[in-house]
Amino acid sequence: MNIGIIGLGLIGGSLGLDLRRLGHRVLGVSRRQQTCLVAKEMGAVDDASIDMTLMALAEVVFVCTPVEAIAPTVVELAALLSPNVIITDVGSVKMPVVDAVAHLWTNFVPGHPMAGTAEAGIAAAIPDLFVRRPYVLTPTATTPPEAVATVAQLAQSLQADIYYCGPLMHDRAVAWISHLPVLVSASLLAAVTSEADLEVLALAKQLASSGFRDTSRVGGGNPELGLMMAKYNRPQLLAALHAYRLQVDRAISLLETEDWKTLEQHLQQTQQARPQFLPPPPQN
Amino acid sequence: MNIGIIGLGLIGGSLGLDLRRLGHRVLGVSRRQQTCLVAKEMGAVDDASIDMTLMALAEVVFVCTPVEAIAPTVVELAALLSPNVIITDVGSVKMPVVDAVAHLWTNFVPGHPMAGTAEAGIAAAIPDLFVRRPYVLTPTATTPPEAVATVAQLAQSLQADIYYCGPLMHDRAVAWISHLPVLVSASLLAAVTSEADLEVLALAKQLASSGFRDTSRVGGGNPELGLMMAKYNRPQLLAALHAYRLQVDRAISLLETEDWKTLEQHLQQTQQARPQFLPPPPQN
Repeated sequence: MNIGIIGLGLIGGSLGLDLRRLGHRVLGVSRRQQTCLVAKEMGAVDDASIDMTLMALAEVVFVCTPVEAIAPTVVELAALLSPNVIITDVGSVKMPVVDAVAHLWTNFVPGHPMAGTAEAGIAAAIPDLFVRRPYVLTPTATTPPEAVATVAQLAQSLQADIYYCGPLMHDRAVAWISHLPVLVSASLLAAVTSEADLEVLALAKQLASSGFRDTSRVGGGNPELGLMMAKYNRPQLLAALHAYRLQVDRAISLLETEDWKTLEQHLQQTQQARPQFLPPPPQN
Repeated sequence: MNIGIIGLGLIGGSLGLDLRRLGHRVLGVSRRQQTCLVAKEMGAVDDASIDMTLMALAEVVFVCTPVEAIAPTVVELAALLSPNVIITDVGSVKMPVVDAVAHLWTNFVPGHPMAGTAEAGIAAAIPDLFVRRPYVLTPTATTPPEAVATVAQLAQSLQADIYYCGPLMHDRAVAWISHLPVLVSASLLAAVTSEADLEVLALAKQLASSGFRDTSRVGGGNPELGLMMAKYNRPQLLAALHAYRLQVDRAISLLETEDWKTLEQHLQQTQQARPQFLPPPPQN
Protein backbone atom coordinates (compact mmCIF):
# COMPACT_ATOMS: atom_id res chain seq x y z
CA MET A 1 0.00 0.00 0.00
CA ASN A 2 1.15 3.56 -0.66
CA ILE A 3 0.94 5.38 2.66
CA GLY A 4 1.36 9.10 3.13
CA ILE A 5 2.52 10.66 6.37
CA ILE A 6 2.25 14.40 6.89
CA GLY A 7 4.30 15.69 9.81
CA LEU A 8 7.48 13.72 10.42
CA GLY A 9 7.90 13.95 14.17
CA LEU A 10 7.99 11.27 16.85
CA ILE A 11 4.61 9.79 15.84
CA GLY A 12 4.87 10.28 12.07
CA GLY A 13 8.44 9.04 11.96
CA SER A 14 7.73 6.00 14.16
CA LEU A 15 4.69 5.13 12.02
CA GLY A 16 6.90 5.33 8.94
CA LEU A 17 9.55 3.03 10.40
CA ASP A 18 6.98 0.35 11.22
CA LEU A 19 4.90 0.67 8.04
CA ARG A 20 7.93 0.44 5.77
CA ARG A 21 9.14 -2.66 7.61
CA LEU A 22 5.68 -4.14 7.00
CA GLY A 23 6.22 -3.70 3.28
CA HIS A 24 4.31 -0.50 2.58
CA ARG A 25 5.66 2.31 0.48
CA VAL A 26 5.83 5.34 2.77
CA LEU A 27 5.77 8.90 1.45
CA GLY A 28 6.46 11.70 3.90
CA VAL A 29 5.74 15.40 3.89
CA SER A 30 7.37 17.83 6.29
CA ARG A 31 7.56 21.62 6.37
CA ARG A 32 11.34 21.39 6.61
CA GLN A 33 13.68 19.95 3.99
CA GLN A 34 16.12 18.91 6.70
CA THR A 35 13.46 16.74 8.36
CA CYS A 36 12.75 15.08 5.00
CA LEU A 37 16.44 14.23 4.65
CA VAL A 38 16.73 12.81 8.17
CA ALA A 39 13.53 10.78 7.75
CA LYS A 40 14.82 9.27 4.52
CA GLU A 41 18.25 8.55 5.96
CA MET A 42 16.86 6.77 9.01
CA GLY A 43 14.48 4.69 6.90
CA ALA A 44 11.26 6.25 8.14
CA VAL A 45 10.13 7.06 4.58
CA ASP A 46 10.83 5.84 1.04
CA ASP A 47 10.50 9.35 -0.23
CA ALA A 48 9.86 12.70 1.41
CA SER A 49 9.17 16.23 0.29
CA ILE A 50 8.17 19.64 1.49
CA ASP A 51 5.72 19.63 -1.42
CA MET A 52 2.26 18.32 -0.55
CA THR A 53 1.69 17.05 -4.12
CA LEU A 54 3.73 13.97 -3.16
CA MET A 55 0.57 12.84 -1.37
CA ALA A 56 -1.24 12.41 -4.71
CA LEU A 57 0.31 8.92 -4.83
CA ALA A 58 -1.02 7.81 -1.43
CA GLU A 59 -3.95 5.47 -0.73
CA VAL A 60 -4.05 6.26 3.00
CA VAL A 61 -2.73 9.50 4.52
CA PHE A 62 -1.83 9.85 8.22
CA VAL A 63 -1.98 13.49 9.31
CA CYS A 64 0.57 13.67 12.13
CA THR A 65 0.76 17.44 12.53
CA PRO A 66 -0.03 19.35 15.72
CA VAL A 67 -3.80 19.45 16.38
CA GLU A 68 -4.25 23.01 15.16
CA ALA A 69 -2.75 22.12 11.75
CA ILE A 70 -4.97 19.10 11.07
CA ALA A 71 -7.91 20.93 9.49
CA PRO A 72 -5.78 23.22 7.24
CA THR A 73 -3.82 20.14 6.16
CA VAL A 74 -6.99 18.29 5.20
CA VAL A 75 -8.15 21.34 3.22
CA GLU A 76 -4.91 21.16 1.22
CA LEU A 77 -5.22 17.40 0.78
CA ALA A 78 -8.84 17.64 -0.38
CA ALA A 79 -7.67 19.58 -3.42
CA LEU A 80 -5.16 16.87 -4.27
CA LEU A 81 -6.57 13.45 -3.50
CA SER A 82 -9.13 11.30 -5.24
CA PRO A 83 -12.21 10.80 -3.02
CA ASN A 84 -11.50 7.13 -2.28
CA VAL A 85 -8.27 7.97 -0.46
CA ILE A 86 -8.54 7.57 3.31
CA ILE A 87 -7.32 10.36 5.57
CA THR A 88 -6.73 9.64 9.24
CA ASP A 89 -5.15 11.74 11.99
CA VAL A 90 -3.30 11.10 15.24
CA GLY A 91 -4.52 14.10 17.23
CA SER A 92 -4.85 13.68 20.99
CA VAL A 93 -8.26 15.36 21.07
CA LYS A 94 -11.02 14.20 18.77
CA MET A 95 -14.20 16.32 18.96
CA PRO A 96 -12.58 19.52 17.63
CA VAL A 97 -10.86 17.54 14.87
CA VAL A 98 -14.08 15.78 13.86
CA ASP A 99 -16.00 19.07 13.95
CA ALA A 100 -13.43 20.77 11.73
CA VAL A 101 -12.58 17.95 9.37
CA ALA A 102 -15.41 15.44 8.95
CA HIS A 103 -17.35 17.67 6.53
CA LEU A 104 -14.19 18.25 4.46
CA TRP A 105 -13.51 14.61 3.61
CA THR A 106 -15.89 11.67 3.61
CA ASN A 107 -13.22 9.02 4.07
CA PHE A 108 -11.81 10.65 7.19
CA VAL A 109 -11.12 8.31 10.13
CA PRO A 110 -10.33 10.16 13.39
CA GLY A 111 -7.68 8.31 15.39
CA HIS A 112 -5.44 8.62 18.43
CA PRO A 113 -2.49 6.32 18.92
CA MET A 114 -1.66 6.77 22.62
CA ALA A 115 2.06 6.23 22.51
CA GLY A 116 4.99 8.50 23.03
CA THR A 117 8.25 9.07 24.78
CA ALA A 118 9.64 12.09 26.59
CA GLU A 119 11.33 13.10 23.32
CA ALA A 120 9.90 14.82 20.23
CA GLY A 121 10.90 15.25 16.59
CA ILE A 122 12.03 12.90 13.83
CA ALA A 123 15.25 12.04 15.68
CA ALA A 124 13.14 10.53 18.47
CA ALA A 125 11.25 8.18 16.12
CA ILE A 126 11.66 4.51 17.05
CA PRO A 127 10.34 1.19 15.77
CA ASP A 128 7.57 -0.60 17.68
CA LEU A 129 6.39 2.57 19.42
CA PHE A 130 2.76 1.42 19.19
CA VAL A 131 3.14 -2.19 20.31
CA ARG A 132 0.56 -2.99 23.04
CA ARG A 133 -0.36 0.69 23.33
CA PRO A 134 -3.94 1.90 22.88
CA TYR A 135 -4.89 3.08 19.40
CA VAL A 136 -8.31 4.74 19.66
CA LEU A 137 -10.51 5.14 16.59
CA THR A 138 -13.44 7.52 16.95
CA PRO A 139 -15.61 7.14 13.85
CA THR A 140 -18.85 9.10 13.64
CA ALA A 141 -22.20 7.92 12.28
CA THR A 142 -21.16 9.02 8.80
CA THR A 143 -17.63 7.55 8.71
CA PRO A 144 -17.55 4.79 6.05
CA PRO A 145 -17.03 1.44 7.82
CA GLU A 146 -14.59 0.26 5.11
CA ALA A 147 -12.38 3.27 5.79
CA VAL A 148 -12.45 2.50 9.53
CA ALA A 149 -11.58 -1.14 8.81
CA THR A 150 -8.57 -0.14 6.67
CA VAL A 151 -7.12 2.12 9.36
CA ALA A 152 -7.87 -0.51 12.02
CA GLN A 153 -5.98 -3.13 9.99
CA LEU A 154 -2.99 -0.82 9.74
CA ALA A 155 -3.13 -0.13 13.51
CA GLN A 156 -3.44 -3.85 14.14
CA SER A 157 -0.35 -4.48 12.02
CA LEU A 158 1.54 -2.12 14.37
CA GLN A 159 0.48 -4.50 17.18
CA ALA A 160 -1.47 -1.72 18.87
CA ASP A 161 -4.52 -2.41 21.07
CA ILE A 162 -7.47 -0.96 19.19
CA TYR A 163 -10.38 0.80 20.93
CA TYR A 164 -13.49 2.22 19.29
CA CYS A 165 -15.59 4.98 20.80
CA GLY A 166 -17.25 8.24 19.87
CA PRO A 167 -15.08 11.38 19.71
CA LEU A 168 -16.76 12.93 22.77
CA MET A 169 -16.31 9.80 24.86
CA HIS A 170 -12.64 9.75 23.88
CA ASP A 171 -12.21 13.37 24.89
CA ARG A 172 -13.95 12.81 28.23
CA ALA A 173 -11.81 9.76 29.03
CA VAL A 174 -8.50 11.43 28.13
CA ALA A 175 -9.54 14.54 30.07
CA TRP A 176 -9.53 12.33 33.18
CA ILE A 177 -6.41 10.30 32.61
CA SER A 178 -4.17 12.50 30.45
CA HIS A 179 -5.20 16.14 30.69
CA LEU A 180 -6.42 16.55 34.29
CA PRO A 181 -3.21 14.99 35.68
CA VAL A 182 -1.15 17.66 33.90
CA LEU A 183 -2.99 20.50 35.66
CA VAL A 184 -3.17 18.62 38.99
CA SER A 185 0.57 18.14 38.82
CA ALA A 186 1.38 21.64 37.54
CA SER A 187 -0.75 23.11 40.35
CA LEU A 188 1.34 21.15 42.86
CA LEU A 189 4.54 22.68 41.51
CA ALA A 190 2.93 26.12 41.46
CA ALA A 191 1.67 25.76 45.04
CA VAL A 192 5.00 24.63 46.47
CA THR A 193 6.93 27.37 44.69
CA SER A 194 4.40 29.91 46.05
CA GLU A 195 5.88 29.30 49.52
CA ALA A 196 6.94 32.76 50.70
CA ASP A 197 9.40 31.55 53.34
CA LEU A 198 12.51 30.97 51.25
CA GLU A 199 14.15 28.82 53.93
CA VAL A 200 11.19 26.43 53.90
CA LEU A 201 11.19 26.41 50.09
CA ALA A 202 14.91 25.66 49.95
CA LEU A 203 14.51 22.82 52.44
CA ALA A 204 11.53 21.44 50.49
CA LYS A 205 13.67 21.35 47.35
CA GLN A 206 16.41 19.48 49.20
CA LEU A 207 14.09 16.94 50.80
CA ALA A 208 11.87 16.22 47.77
CA SER A 209 12.08 12.61 46.74
CA SER A 210 10.23 9.97 44.71
CA GLY A 211 6.71 10.88 45.90
CA PHE A 212 7.11 14.48 44.84
CA ARG A 213 9.04 13.50 41.73
CA ASP A 214 6.26 11.24 40.46
CA THR A 215 3.36 13.52 41.38
CA SER A 216 5.02 16.52 39.72
CA ARG A 217 6.29 14.78 36.58
CA VAL A 218 3.56 15.55 34.04
CA GLY A 219 3.10 19.08 35.44
CA GLY A 220 6.74 19.77 34.65
CA GLY A 221 6.40 18.58 31.07
CA ASN A 222 6.15 20.31 27.69
CA PRO A 223 4.05 23.52 28.12
CA GLU A 224 2.90 23.33 24.48
CA LEU A 225 1.21 19.98 25.09
CA GLY A 226 -0.50 21.29 28.20
CA LEU A 227 -1.69 24.36 26.36
CA MET A 228 -2.93 22.29 23.40
CA MET A 229 -5.07 20.01 25.54
CA ALA A 230 -6.50 22.99 27.48
CA LYS A 231 -7.41 24.79 24.26
CA TYR A 232 -8.82 21.85 22.37
CA ASN A 233 -10.34 19.81 25.17
CA ARG A 234 -11.49 22.80 27.20
CA PRO A 235 -15.08 21.77 28.11
CA GLN A 236 -14.11 18.25 29.12
CA LEU A 237 -11.04 19.38 31.03
CA LEU A 238 -13.04 22.08 32.82
CA ALA A 239 -15.61 19.50 33.90
CA ALA A 240 -12.82 17.27 35.19
CA LEU A 241 -11.17 20.21 36.99
CA HIS A 242 -14.42 21.15 38.71
CA ALA A 243 -14.92 17.55 39.86
CA TYR A 244 -11.33 17.54 41.06
CA ARG A 245 -11.74 20.77 43.01
CA LEU A 246 -14.70 19.21 44.83
CA GLN A 247 -12.37 16.44 45.98
CA VAL A 248 -9.72 18.91 47.13
CA ASP A 249 -12.44 20.82 49.01
CA ARG A 250 -13.54 17.56 50.57
CA ALA A 251 -10.01 16.77 51.74
CA ILE A 252 -9.70 20.26 53.23
CA SER A 253 -13.03 19.85 54.99
CA LEU A 254 -12.07 16.45 56.44
CA LEU A 255 -8.88 17.93 57.86
CA GLU A 256 -10.62 21.04 59.15
CA THR A 257 -13.26 18.99 60.97
CA GLU A 258 -10.70 16.33 61.99
CA ASP A 259 -12.98 13.66 60.56
CA TRP A 260 -10.28 10.99 60.60
CA LYS A 261 -12.67 8.08 60.17
CA THR A 262 -13.99 9.42 56.86
CA LEU A 263 -10.51 10.43 55.70
CA GLU A 264 -9.27 6.91 56.37
CA GLN A 265 -12.18 5.42 54.38
CA HIS A 266 -11.49 7.90 51.60
CA LEU A 267 -7.82 6.88 51.42
CA GLN A 268 -8.78 3.22 51.52
CA GLN A 269 -11.05 3.81 48.52
CA THR A 270 -8.35 5.57 46.53
CA GLN A 271 -5.91 2.78 47.39
CA GLN A 272 -8.41 0.24 46.06
CA ALA A 273 -9.22 2.30 42.96
CA ARG A 274 -5.72 2.78 41.65
CA PRO A 275 -4.96 -0.78 40.43
CA GLN A 276 -8.02 -0.52 38.15
CA PHE A 277 -6.12 2.11 36.14
CA LEU A 278 -2.94 0.10 35.74
CA PRO A 279 -2.36 -2.03 32.68
CA PRO A 280 -2.37 -5.80 33.20
CA PRO A 281 1.13 -7.29 33.44
CA PRO A 282 2.72 -8.06 30.05
CA GLN A 283 1.96 -11.46 28.54
CA ASN A 284 4.90 -13.76 27.93
CA MET B 1 28.27 1.46 71.27
CA ASN B 2 25.19 -0.24 72.70
CA ILE B 3 22.26 0.89 70.56
CA GLY B 4 18.63 0.24 71.32
CA ILE B 5 15.96 0.11 68.66
CA ILE B 6 12.30 0.12 69.63
CA GLY B 7 9.98 -0.90 66.83
CA LEU B 8 11.49 -3.42 64.44
CA GLY B 9 9.87 -2.52 61.13
CA LEU B 10 11.36 -1.35 57.85
CA ILE B 11 13.20 1.59 59.44
CA GLY B 12 14.13 -0.02 62.76
CA GLY B 13 15.24 -3.24 61.11
CA SER B 14 17.25 -1.47 58.42
CA LEU B 15 18.93 0.71 61.06
CA GLY B 16 19.84 -2.45 62.96
CA LEU B 17 21.36 -4.14 59.91
CA ASP B 18 23.60 -1.14 59.20
CA LEU B 19 24.54 -0.37 62.80
CA ARG B 20 25.53 -3.96 63.56
CA ARG B 21 27.69 -4.06 60.44
CA LEU B 22 29.37 -0.89 61.71
CA GLY B 23 30.34 -2.75 64.88
CA HIS B 24 27.68 -1.58 67.31
CA ARG B 25 25.81 -3.90 69.60
CA VAL B 26 22.15 -3.60 68.65
CA LEU B 27 19.32 -4.41 71.06
CA GLY B 28 15.80 -4.51 69.71
CA VAL B 29 12.38 -4.27 71.29
CA SER B 30 9.19 -5.22 69.49
CA ARG B 31 5.66 -5.77 70.67
CA ARG B 32 5.67 -9.17 68.99
CA GLN B 33 7.90 -12.11 69.90
CA GLN B 34 7.81 -13.34 66.30
CA THR B 35 9.26 -10.03 65.08
CA CYS B 36 12.07 -10.36 67.64
CA LEU B 37 12.91 -13.81 66.29
CA VAL B 38 12.91 -12.69 62.66
CA ALA B 39 15.03 -9.62 63.48
CA LYS B 40 17.59 -11.78 65.23
CA GLU B 41 17.65 -14.39 62.49
CA MET B 42 18.21 -11.83 59.76
CA GLY B 43 20.97 -10.13 61.68
CA ALA B 44 19.15 -6.87 62.36
CA VAL B 45 19.76 -7.17 66.14
CA ASP B 46 22.17 -8.90 68.47
CA ASP B 47 19.40 -9.45 70.94
CA ALA B 48 15.70 -8.65 70.93
CA SER B 49 12.86 -8.81 73.41
CA ILE B 50 9.25 -7.82 73.93
CA ASP B 51 10.44 -6.56 77.34
CA MET B 52 11.42 -2.90 77.42
CA THR B 53 13.93 -3.48 80.23
CA LEU B 54 16.39 -4.69 77.56
CA MET B 55 16.86 -1.00 76.78
CA ALA B 56 18.52 -0.44 80.17
CA LEU B 57 21.78 -1.52 78.47
CA ALA B 58 21.58 1.05 75.65
CA GLU B 59 23.56 4.26 75.28
CA VAL B 60 21.46 5.56 72.40
CA VAL B 61 17.86 4.50 71.77
CA PHE B 62 16.14 4.91 68.39
CA VAL B 63 12.37 5.01 68.80
CA CYS B 64 11.07 3.62 65.50
CA THR B 65 7.43 3.15 66.42
CA PRO B 66 4.50 4.78 64.65
CA VAL B 67 4.27 8.49 65.51
CA GLU B 68 1.42 8.08 68.00
CA ALA B 69 3.46 5.60 70.05
CA ILE B 70 6.58 7.77 70.39
CA ALA B 71 5.53 9.75 73.48
CA PRO B 72 4.19 6.71 75.41
CA THR B 73 7.40 4.87 74.55
CA VAL B 74 9.55 7.70 75.87
CA VAL B 75 7.49 7.74 79.08
CA GLU B 76 8.33 4.05 79.54
CA LEU B 77 11.98 4.62 78.69
CA ALA B 78 12.27 7.55 81.10
CA ALA B 79 11.56 5.18 83.98
CA LEU B 80 14.35 2.85 82.84
CA LEU B 81 17.27 4.83 81.48
CA SER B 82 19.97 6.85 83.14
CA PRO B 83 19.69 10.54 82.18
CA ASN B 84 22.80 10.57 79.98
CA VAL B 85 21.26 8.09 77.55
CA ILE B 86 20.27 9.70 74.26
CA ILE B 87 16.81 9.03 72.86
CA THR B 88 16.09 9.84 69.24
CA ASP B 89 13.08 9.12 67.05
CA VAL B 90 12.44 8.59 63.34
CA GLY B 91 8.92 10.08 63.15
CA SER B 92 7.94 11.76 59.88
CA VAL B 93 6.42 14.77 61.67
CA LYS B 94 8.42 16.66 64.25
CA MET B 95 6.46 19.43 66.00
CA PRO B 96 3.95 17.08 67.69
CA VAL B 97 6.77 14.76 68.72
CA VAL B 98 8.85 17.59 70.14
CA ASP B 99 5.81 19.04 71.93
CA ALA B 100 4.99 15.69 73.49
CA VAL B 101 8.47 14.39 74.23
CA ALA B 102 11.02 17.18 74.73
CA HIS B 103 9.91 17.88 78.30
CA LEU B 104 10.06 14.14 79.13
CA TRP B 105 13.73 13.64 78.33
CA THR B 106 16.52 16.18 78.16
CA ASN B 107 18.75 14.16 75.85
CA PHE B 108 16.04 13.74 73.22
CA VAL B 109 17.10 14.39 69.62
CA PRO B 110 14.17 14.59 67.19
CA GLY B 111 15.07 13.03 63.83
CA HIS B 112 13.59 11.97 60.52
CA PRO B 113 15.48 9.66 58.19
CA MET B 114 13.67 10.13 54.88
CA ALA B 115 14.10 6.70 53.41
CA GLY B 116 11.74 3.89 52.67
CA THR B 117 10.47 1.40 50.17
CA ALA B 118 6.96 0.39 49.15
CA GLU B 119 7.17 -2.40 51.73
CA ALA B 120 6.75 -2.37 55.50
CA GLY B 121 7.68 -4.59 58.42
CA ILE B 122 10.84 -6.36 59.53
CA ALA B 123 10.87 -8.62 56.46
CA ALA B 124 11.30 -5.50 54.30
CA ALA B 125 14.40 -4.30 56.20
CA ILE B 126 17.45 -3.94 53.95
CA PRO B 127 21.05 -2.79 54.37
CA ASP B 128 22.09 0.66 53.11
CA LEU B 129 18.52 2.01 53.16
CA PHE B 130 19.78 5.43 54.29
CA VAL B 131 22.71 5.90 51.91
CA ARG B 132 22.50 9.34 50.26
CA ARG B 133 19.00 9.86 51.65
CA PRO B 134 18.14 12.91 53.77
CA TYR B 135 18.36 12.44 57.54
CA VAL B 136 16.81 15.51 59.14
CA LEU B 137 17.62 16.43 62.72
CA THR B 138 15.37 19.03 64.33
CA PRO B 139 16.91 20.00 67.66
CA THR B 140 15.27 22.71 69.72
CA ALA B 141 16.93 25.51 71.70
CA THR B 142 17.19 23.17 74.68
CA THR B 143 18.50 20.04 72.97
CA PRO B 144 22.05 19.34 74.24
CA PRO B 145 24.49 19.87 71.33
CA GLU B 146 26.53 16.79 72.35
CA ALA B 147 23.43 14.61 72.02
CA VAL B 148 22.76 16.07 68.56
CA ALA B 149 26.37 15.42 67.58
CA THR B 150 26.17 11.78 68.67
CA VAL B 151 23.02 11.11 66.61
CA ALA B 152 24.50 13.03 63.68
CA GLN B 153 27.62 10.86 63.80
CA LEU B 154 25.51 7.73 63.72
CA ALA B 155 23.47 9.09 60.79
CA GLN B 156 26.72 10.03 59.05
CA SER B 157 28.01 6.50 59.52
CA LEU B 158 24.89 5.29 57.63
CA GLN B 159 26.08 7.54 54.77
CA ALA B 160 22.91 9.62 55.02
CA ASP B 161 22.83 13.30 54.00
CA ILE B 162 22.26 15.23 57.22
CA TYR B 163 20.06 18.32 57.43
CA TYR B 164 19.42 20.49 60.48
CA CYS B 165 16.34 22.65 60.94
CA GLY B 166 13.70 23.50 63.50
CA PRO B 167 10.79 21.07 63.94
CA LEU B 168 8.27 23.52 62.48
CA MET B 169 10.38 24.20 59.41
CA HIS B 170 10.71 20.45 58.89
CA ASP B 171 6.96 19.98 59.14
CA ARG B 172 6.28 22.83 56.71
CA ALA B 173 8.76 21.47 54.17
CA VAL B 174 7.47 17.88 54.32
CA ALA B 175 3.88 19.15 54.12
CA TRP B 176 4.80 20.49 50.67
CA ILE B 177 6.83 17.63 49.30
CA SER B 178 5.51 14.54 51.10
CA HIS B 179 2.07 15.17 52.55
CA LEU B 180 0.39 17.50 50.05
CA PRO B 181 1.26 15.19 47.13
CA VAL B 182 -0.61 12.33 48.84
CA LEU B 183 -3.86 14.31 49.00
CA VAL B 184 -3.33 15.86 45.54
CA SER B 185 -2.90 12.40 44.15
CA ALA B 186 -5.72 10.78 46.17
CA SER B 187 -8.06 13.58 45.04
CA LEU B 188 -7.20 12.74 41.43
CA LEU B 189 -8.20 9.12 41.95
CA ALA B 190 -11.36 10.20 43.79
CA ALA B 191 -12.29 12.66 41.04
CA VAL B 192 -11.86 10.21 38.18
CA THR B 193 -13.79 7.47 39.95
CA SER B 194 -16.59 9.99 40.60
CA GLU B 195 -17.33 9.91 36.84
CA ALA B 196 -21.00 8.95 36.64
CA ASP B 197 -20.90 7.73 33.03
CA LEU B 198 -19.66 4.18 33.48
CA GLU B 199 -18.68 3.84 29.83
CA VAL B 200 -16.39 6.85 30.11
CA LEU B 201 -14.98 5.51 33.39
CA ALA B 202 -14.30 2.09 31.87
CA LEU B 203 -12.57 3.68 28.87
CA ALA B 204 -10.51 5.91 31.17
CA LYS B 205 -9.32 2.83 33.06
CA GLN B 206 -8.32 1.15 29.80
CA LEU B 207 -6.50 4.17 28.38
CA ALA B 208 -4.67 5.25 31.56
CA SER B 209 -0.94 5.12 31.11
CA SER B 210 2.31 6.42 32.61
CA GLY B 211 1.09 9.99 33.22
CA PHE B 212 -1.87 8.83 35.25
CA ARG B 213 0.15 6.08 36.87
CA ASP B 214 2.79 8.48 38.20
CA THR B 215 0.39 11.22 39.27
CA SER B 216 -1.83 8.76 41.15
CA ARG B 217 0.91 6.68 42.79
CA VAL B 218 1.18 8.25 46.24
CA GLY B 219 -2.60 8.75 46.45
CA GLY B 220 -3.03 5.01 46.04
CA GLY B 221 -0.59 4.23 48.84
CA ASN B 222 -0.96 3.09 52.44
CA PRO B 223 -4.05 4.81 53.97
CA GLU B 224 -2.51 4.63 57.45
CA LEU B 225 0.43 6.79 56.39
CA GLY B 226 -1.90 9.32 54.79
CA LEU B 227 -4.05 9.44 57.90
CA MET B 228 -1.01 9.81 60.16
CA MET B 229 0.37 12.81 58.29
CA ALA B 230 -3.07 14.46 58.21
CA LYS B 231 -3.55 13.97 61.94
CA TYR B 232 -0.07 14.96 63.05
CA ASN B 233 0.82 17.60 60.49
CA ARG B 234 -2.68 19.03 60.21
CA PRO B 235 -1.98 22.81 60.39
CA GLN B 236 0.91 22.66 57.92
CA LEU B 237 -0.92 20.32 55.56
CA LEU B 238 -4.05 22.50 55.70
CA ALA B 239 -1.98 25.57 54.80
CA ALA B 240 -0.46 23.68 51.88
CA LEU B 241 -3.88 22.44 50.75
CA HIS B 242 -5.32 25.96 50.81
CA ALA B 243 -2.39 27.24 48.73
CA TYR B 244 -2.89 24.32 46.38
CA ARG B 245 -6.60 25.02 45.98
CA LEU B 246 -5.75 28.58 44.95
CA GLN B 247 -3.65 27.13 42.12
CA VAL B 248 -6.44 24.80 41.03
CA ASP B 249 -8.83 27.75 41.08
CA ARG B 250 -6.35 29.70 39.00
CA ALA B 251 -6.13 26.91 36.42
CA ILE B 252 -9.93 26.75 36.24
CA SER B 253 -10.13 30.50 35.81
CA LEU B 254 -7.51 30.50 33.02
CA LEU B 255 -9.48 27.87 31.13
CA GLU B 256 -12.80 29.58 31.74
CA THR B 257 -11.51 32.89 30.43
CA GLU B 258 -9.47 31.18 27.69
CA ASP B 259 -6.40 33.10 28.83
CA TRP B 260 -3.99 30.93 26.87
CA LYS B 261 -1.07 33.33 27.09
CA THR B 262 -1.08 33.23 30.90
CA LEU B 263 -1.67 29.48 30.97
CA GLU B 264 1.33 28.97 28.72
CA GLN B 265 3.51 31.15 30.96
CA HIS B 266 2.19 29.25 33.98
CA LEU B 267 3.13 25.89 32.43
CA GLN B 268 6.52 27.24 31.41
CA GLN B 269 7.12 28.24 35.04
CA THR B 270 6.16 24.83 36.38
CA GLN B 271 8.39 23.19 33.76
CA GLN B 272 11.29 25.34 34.92
CA ALA B 273 10.52 24.78 38.61
CA ARG B 274 10.49 21.00 38.62
CA PRO B 275 14.21 20.29 38.14
CA GLN B 276 14.88 22.29 41.33
CA PHE B 277 13.14 19.52 43.27
CA LEU B 278 15.08 16.66 41.74
CA PRO B 279 18.18 15.29 43.42
CA PRO B 280 21.47 15.90 41.59
CA PRO B 281 22.61 12.90 39.55
CA PRO B 282 24.56 10.30 41.56
CA GLN B 283 28.30 10.87 41.91
CA ASN B 284 30.56 8.25 40.39
